[in-house]
Amino acid sequence: MSISGKSLVAGVWLGSEAEGQFQAYNPIAGENLAQRYYNASRTDIDQAALQAAAAFPSFSQLNVEQRAQFLETIGEEILALGDELLETTALETGLPMMRLQGERMRTVNQLRMFAQYIREQANAEVLDEADPAREPLPKPETRLRHIALGPVAVFGASNFPYAFSTAGGDTASALAAGCPVVVKGHPAHPGTSELVAQAIDKAINTCGLHSGVFSLFQSSKPEASIELVQHPAIQAVGFTGSIRVGQLLQKACWERTQNIPFYGELGAVNPQVVMPAMANDNAQNIAQGLVDSLVMGNGQFCTNPGLWLVPESAGEFRQAASEAIRNASTTALLTQGISAAYSAATIKLAQTEGVELLAGNEVEQPHFSAAKLFSTSASEFLANRELHEEVFGPAALMVSYRDEEELHSVIASLEGQLTASIHGLEQDLAQAGNLSQQLAHKVGRLIYNQMPTGVEVCYSMNHGGPFPSSTDVRSTSVGAAAYQRFVRPICYQNAPAHLLS
Amino acid sequence: MSISGKSLVAGVWLGSEAEGQFQAYNPIAGENLAQRYYNASRTDIDQAALQAAAAFPSFSQLNVEQRAQFLETIGEEILALGDELLETTALETGLPMMRLQGERMRTVNQLRMFAQYIREQANAEVLDEADPAREPLPKPETRLRHIALGPVAVFGASNFPYAFSTAGGDTASALAAGCPVVVKGHPAHPGTSELVAQAIDKAINTCGLHSGVFSLFQSSKPEASIELVQHPAIQAVGFTGSIRVGQLLQKACWERTQNIPFYGELGAVNPQVVMPAMANDNAQNIAQGLVDSLVMGNGQFCTNPGLWLVPESAGEFRQAASEAIRNASTTALLTQGISAAYSAATIKLAQTEGVELLAGNEVEQPHFSAAKLFSTSASEFLANRELHEEVFGPAALMVSYRDEEELHSVIASLEGQLTASIHGLEQDLAQAGNLSQQLAHKVGRLIYNQMPTGVEVCYSMNHGGPFPSSTDVRSTSVGAAAYQRFVRPICYQNAPAHLLS
Repeated sequence: MSISGKSLVAGVWLGSEAEGQFQAYNPIAGENLAQRYYNASRTDIDQAALQAAAAFPSFSQLNVEQRAQFLETIGEEILALGDELLETTALETGLPMMRLQGERMRTVNQLRMFAQYIREQANAEVLDEADPAREPLPKPETRLRHIALGPVAVFGASNFPYAFSTAGGDTASALAAGCPVVVKGHPAHPGTSELVAQAIDKAINTCGLHSGVFSLFQSSKPEASIELVQHPAIQAVGFTGSIRVGQLLQKACWERTQNIPFYGELGAVNPQVVMPAMANDNAQNIAQGLVDSLVMGNGQFCTNPGLWLVPESAGEFRQAASEAIRNASTTALLTQGISAAYSAATIKLAQTEGVELLAGNEVEQPHFSAAKLFSTSASEFLANRELHEEVFGPAALMVSYRDEEELHSVIASLEGQLTASIHGLEQDLAQAGNLSQQLAHKVGRLIYNQMPTGVEVCYSMNHGGPFPSSTDVRSTSVGAAAYQRFVRPICYQNAPAHLLS
Repeated sequence: MSISGKSLVAGVWLGSEAEGQFQAYNPIAGENLAQRYYNASRTDIDQAALQAAAAFPSFSQLNVEQRAQFLETIGEEILALGDELLETTALETGLPMMRLQGERMRTVNQLRMFAQYIREQANAEVLDEADPAREPLPKPETRLRHIALGPVAVFGASNFPYAFSTAGGDTASALAAGCPVVVKGHPAHPGTSELVAQAIDKAINTCGLHSGVFSLFQSSKPEASIELVQHPAIQAVGFTGSIRVGQLLQKACWERTQNIPFYGELGAVNPQVVMPAMANDNAQNIAQGLVDSLVMGNGQFCTNPGLWLVPESAGEFRQAASEAIRNASTTALLTQGISAAYSAATIKLAQTEGVELLAGNEVEQPHFSAAKLFSTSASEFLANRELHEEVFGPAALMVSYRDEEELHSVIASLEGQLTASIHGLEQDLAQAGNLSQQLAHKVGRLIYNQMPTGVEVCYSMNHGGPFPSSTDVRSTSVGAAAYQRFVRPICYQNAPAHLLS
């Protein structure tokens, strides 16, 4: 396949120099890639949304088997892109080939999971039968079903070029629900976005669907995102990214005449509670496990363990963790923006009163990252809200707690999180009832003796959490329940059978 | 029981003259009632929310049977209030005794339904079992459960003094979910609110619960509502009322640091499509049925049929409907505000170019209402957005459509609705496929050959709809699924059995 640099607007590739162009950046080489991408025009975005609305009646009324096959066909077409896709993404992201192969498989499996899920569950209903003899009034027949919301806007995420981007979880779950999708590709990996959009376009043609079912537009301009979420045809938004951008888009949604759901998955520090016996009796293993999780994906996962709550007395753990950091290998961060922010945040942390840099490597190349472990006391952490902020990249802050009471104070002070882990030996967990209850109300996923990175894509996953880790605590962006974000209930009362099919 | 005029703040009745007082109004007599009610202070509201937060850990961790028994006990205590409750409400609302008895029973049955629902479903979970042997990575055990959101703010509604007020559906579903509740009583029926709060207070004591589980505050000041929804302890809001007030409260929620769900059920015109054969062959019955539904509860139901779409040719239907309006008996509207708004809206409609008053009685007393039926053409309706607005009270607008195409244009122009009905004979419904599909995307409940008033309280009900009929199309304020508004998902990964109980 060749890359055009254009946007896919309902089956047509459009692009002109009027709106300017942008290039992707190769983070390993530290230089821009040659291919230029046209910024989509306001007209392109408008057309994409209007064509999504035009496709909605026929697409939402497809039977479940047709929608399931469409999802599976997208998966096959992505695999058919072969090495060209992997090589394009490797250049644009700097992510290693094995990771990209794994993420591509995850993405295809997500599409398959939603196909399976809708085959099993999309036609489920709750039925109350009529009772014409009931006193004082007859009881009507009512049945509760779910229907698609309408066209959905999806934003590609820089840190998952496949699984949270063009054909990622938001797109897959929206299409599964019967909602056409307009994707704004992330400007960090436009070639990847275009190739995946080509795959979806093929699947639309193979399945004989309305071309408005899917559009991808490319843009490096922030106002294009605002135009998309404020378009009257758009009925829901799926976003994965920073708190700052997520809140900007949320506010833009609030300016609309019509309320629509905005599903922003924004990030977290994902507290890791190391309990006393675990810290003392298993120091080497738990320290190594936390560092391995921290540097996985170069620290650029939303579930990255950025905050460790560790007993004051755990000297061996501190040494082991410092040693593991020094042995950790890291590479280039995804984008120049992430790299600059990581550098600024770690410099600021190192200069913060009461914060100590326990271990941190020097970078091999100027635009590479280096894993860093900082340490502070519970009282400093409680006094300084800036220490609660996420540092996107392979840096963790270890907070020492004196006793259970201080641990509870630290947890009470936290904002909402995607996930937290409790690491404890049997004697620790025997007394972890209150800790579990307290953490449960702070997180979307509560983990015992496992690391937060590596989000299982399954029916029982929840990837979301109390604000600000997500903008809607009732929703998940991973797992089968992500489908629920793009349908809504409807009650059919006394409906003739032929109108219910 | 005696009425104190005070607010119930976590088990203590508080009130002082510092914030001023207000009185309820007897709409039948057209004069204020003697009892005075203290406006709650900012401190009272703050205390109610803080005590709700203090009650949350213990209340949300009650086992399901304890919560179910609490709901049932509230129902028993409401019934134990006996005639004093009914007589107080009759004076404050002007609603007839038989309606009040029915609504009281509905309210008690709602509490019982949620008790049954949580016994059956609150502990449901989705489980994915671990697979340590999976390649390339072991699969963790994950289970998806739901936990309570936290303290919930509920606003009493003027038009349902029991079923949508102090112990109404919002309160019942929030308590069922494990959320403490702070109610702002509607100032139109403060005596009713106080008596029901006394019943809940007794149930709290009988069940040995934290007194912060429930508070009621009385106020006639709009700023008290803003203070409540902006209180940091409040985690969700249930509101039933006008679009104007609902949007004010929604905006107030958006000013919070933390996003919370705002469930506003705001009202609708609930289009009634009369199909050609029905209009011609069954004119008398369908006309009488629509008028009976229109004047039920004096036109003050959210599901009131305010917009009728009728074939241009249906002369007999027009005559029959006019006759039925002239025979309809009406009474006083609930409040002086509703009465003034109804009067102004119907005068304006009668003076609108292209709108004809088909039938309308004179009022028996100056502050009573009179049923009115207006008529206009589809083209006038399409040209004038003001004709799309709800008139709260027993008035309907009949829009004549020339053919199916014009009917579809009218429906396409409508905003979101709580409900719509299709009234058709067999030959009509045989061709109603497109009409059904089109209406489904406009409403929360689609009804065939039944009237929209009389919302069945059952597992499969949906009472909500696309904006602006509700602020959250994903939610219902009636039926078992209302419970879902006040819980959120959480995934427990690799959790020891003793921490999951």
